[in-house]
Amino acid sequence: MMNPISDYQKKTRNSAKLFARSKKLHVNGVSHNIRFYEPYPFVVKKSKGKNLVDVDGNKFVDYWNGHWSLILGHAPKKVKDSLKKQIENGWMYGTVNDQTIKLSDIISKSVPVAEKIRYVTSGTEATMYAVRLARSVTGKKIIAKVDGGWHGYTSDLLKSVNWPFSESESSGVLNEEKIISIPYNDLEGSLKILKKFSKDLAGVIIEPVLGGGGCIPATKEYLKGIQEFVHKNNSLFILDEIVTGFRFRFGCLYPTMKLDPDIVTLGKIVGGGMAIGVMCGKKEIMQYADTKGKKKSERSYVGGGTFSANPASMIAGYVTLLELKRNNSIYSKINELGDFARKELGKTFGDKVILTGKGSLFMTHFVKNGITEITNSTQAAKCDSLMLQKYHFTMIAQNGIFFLPGKLGAISAAHSKRDINNLVEASEFFINSKK
Amino acid sequence: MMNPISDYQKKTRNSAKLFARSKKLHVNGVSHNIRFYEPYPFVVKKSKGKNLVDVDGNKFVDYWNGHWSLILGHAPKKVKDSLKKQIENGWMYGTVNDQTIKLSDIISKSVPVAEKIRYVTSGTEATMYAVRLARSVTGKKIIAKVDGGWHGYTSDLLKSVNWPFSESESSGVLNEEKIISIPYNDLEGSLKILKKFSKDLAGVIIEPVLGGGGCIPATKEYLKGIQEFVHKNNSLFILDEIVTGFRFRFGCLYPTMKLDPDIVTLGKIVGGGMAIGVMCGKKEIMQYADTKGKKKSERSYVGGGTFSANPASMIAGYVTLLELKRNNSIYSKINELGDFARKELGKTFGDKVILTGKGSLFMTHFVKNGITEITNSTQAAKCDSLMLQKYHFTMIAQNGIFFLPGKLGAISAAHSKRDINNLVEASEFFINSKK
Repeated sequence: MMNPISDYQKKTRNSAKLFARSKKLHVNGVSHNIRFYEPYPFVVKKSKGKNLVDVDGNKFVDYWNGHWSLILGHAPKKVKDSLKKQIENGWMYGTVNDQTIKLSDIISKSVPVAEKIRYVTSGTEATMYAVRLARSVTGKKIIAKVDGGWHGYTSDLLKSVNWPFSESESSGVLNEEKIISIPYNDLEGSLKILKKFSKDLAGVIIEPVLGGGGCIPATKEYLKGIQEFVHKNNSLFILDEIVTGFRFRFGCLYPTMKLDPDIVTLGKIVGGGMAIGVMCGKKEIMQYADTKGKKKSERSYVGGGTFSANPASMIAGYVTLLELKRNNSIYSKINELGDFARKELGKTFGDKVILTGKGSLFMTHFVKNGITEITNSTQAAKCDSLMLQKYHFTMIAQNGIFFLPGKLGAISAAHSKRDINNLVEASEFFINSKK
Repeated sequence: MMNPISDYQKKTRNSAKLFARSKKLHVNGVSHNIRFYEPYPFVVKKSKGKNLVDVDGNKFVDYWNGHWSLILGHAPKKVKDSLKKQIENGWMYGTVNDQTIKLSDIISKSVPVAEKIRYVTSGTEATMYAVRLARSVTGKKIIAKVDGGWHGYTSDLLKSVNWPFSESESSGVLNEEKIISIPYNDLEGSLKILKKFSKDLAGVIIEPVLGGGGCIPATKEYLKGIQEFVHKNNSLFILDEIVTGFRFRFGCLYPTMKLDPDIVTLGKIVGGGMAIGVMCGKKEIMQYADTKGKKKSERSYVGGGTFSANPASMIAGYVTLLELKRNNSIYSKINELGDFARKELGKTFGDKVILTGKGSLFMTHFVKNGITEITNSTQAAKCDSLMLQKYHFTMIAQNGIFFLPGKLGAISAAHSKRDINNLVEASEFFINSKK
């Protein structure tokens, strides 16, 4: 009765059948490695507000929220209506459109560094271009990232993502020696490494809150210190705000720390759940990507792509941002719910866990190996990830609560205090069953 | 009266205003380098069937067709209705869904090599992963591509795209020495180079019809010869069918030449105009991308991405392919229209041009520098590209016909013989005005 796997199998028979077909067709049955979990992921039929509904009719309160891209919840009415209207007028022009100008207007006014914007199709593309641009601008080659930093699958940043950080992430990648990794939130340790490579350092790229790396905010001192070094060194300071942009406030996180990045990457929320990646930055930096009148070898060849700035992604992003601007109380609401979740889950689990996060992003780490604080991905990696997966899976199987097993949770405007209370109750049940 | 630039400016006043704003916000005013043309691109308001309509109300018969992705024309009813229904049920699940299985079912049945499929978000991502996978499988590093081959902006293939091919495409890219370039449709010349690098050759990637490189089909002998060498050498044969897949027949182009690729990349048409990239291949190759039970350094780390296999892209692709399957006569129709366009434009321009292409793809090259045939991008590059741009722009300004200036044209199911006749007539007018 209390076996979550058999409970899950009983209520997800249609998913089991469909996933068996999916396994035949796809590598490991999925189109994103992290979407697989044992014994098989449920197959979604529809989504609305805070809920995912699977093909067996099970309803889940969703804290995964489309890779954390859906800050208004699933299919919010205004975005939905605008998207449907757009679909009526075509979804692929392959040319300049007004929807793009509208979205850029709102981004440029709320993200000071966005003096020039270039849309691409994914976050992976945005960070790839940011690296290329940094190398073009500086004429240098090395890019530094932090241990546990995740910037998508681009070959240019595929290093020190998962524990153990010193081990290659993949076969088949070149240039790992041109990516160096520094310890997150450890300014002294980071500067020591950066100084060694300072001559050929094109830039440093950092998420101001580690997403995949464990939902860990950077300290202001850390980011300020890195920025100071980088700028003195004539290298570029790149902030990857794909997860954090428009997540905590209307705009990016970096202005709250009075930072001065050269390039910022955005994605997720600014596309309203439609495919998007954004590279924006200071005019004097971004102009290297202007191909006009430049020889091939002088320009920084930045896309684009077939789907870049398509009117459907642009309108979904624009209406999402407009909603967030008009209802600024969404931010205080979801930030407070995040604080409440961290506090109550902390009470429930006691010293068994450390809660990390910021605002509406939160993650529960089951302590192990004597870990007493989590300020970097190494500490997060030493925690009990199997227990976290079990906790998340149990809630999927028995409580109708969905976190992508092992990943951080995001609260959307569609969630309520009651949802958090239910999460806390489910967590109590889980931890008591372990006693 | 006959100045196309002033004609254009007169009828695109709203576009001019909007584009001035776009220039302030975006690098060169666009989100894809090729979308800019002088004096400014018109701004699209809506699209339907064969038409783009701009913000001044001008209607254009569109041969650009969303970067050649819209084989059914803009916003075809069945795809549109399915998309709107999908939007109603959410567009971003971030999980496994049935729409993906449906699309994969139809692809796997019509593309023999697609024993395993992985969806990504763009063609650029698909070719990046194909390169990574080839390196993982073979343990070798060098990737060969052809002069003028275009596989998106990935750092792993950014070489020998634009004339002069020997010059770097961009500053800020590494590893150019790991990409080697071979002369298209020149088997002897290609094998000579491949043999030099055979020990470290991971694979060769080729478009069976050069898209960006000038709309030039590869000969069967060329592809067969490359494939034979590559397979004897234990390297991988990768066909990039992002443009050609489902463009000439229901399936890929390669089976018509009895080829045996290891990996095929798809995109454009199979997403029905929504963001998509596909990497598919033989089971024993694709399994390297399975992360389960592998050490980090052993796996080939293949995404994924936030938007991979999102239900909106999947349903748009599925319904598009279903339409093409049910109405197989679409292929004979658009292939014949392509033949007709090549023949009639050839008559109109006489020895001033060479028409290249295949099926519904065609391109007009204004000869120069003694060029008498076009079987590779070098010959295409020696043609009069300024005249081609002028020809395309004149038709935009004076005839309501849209080719992205300088690029090949694609015929969709929404085009008719009358459209081709109008194109021929406009071409006659253009060439006579030059006399």
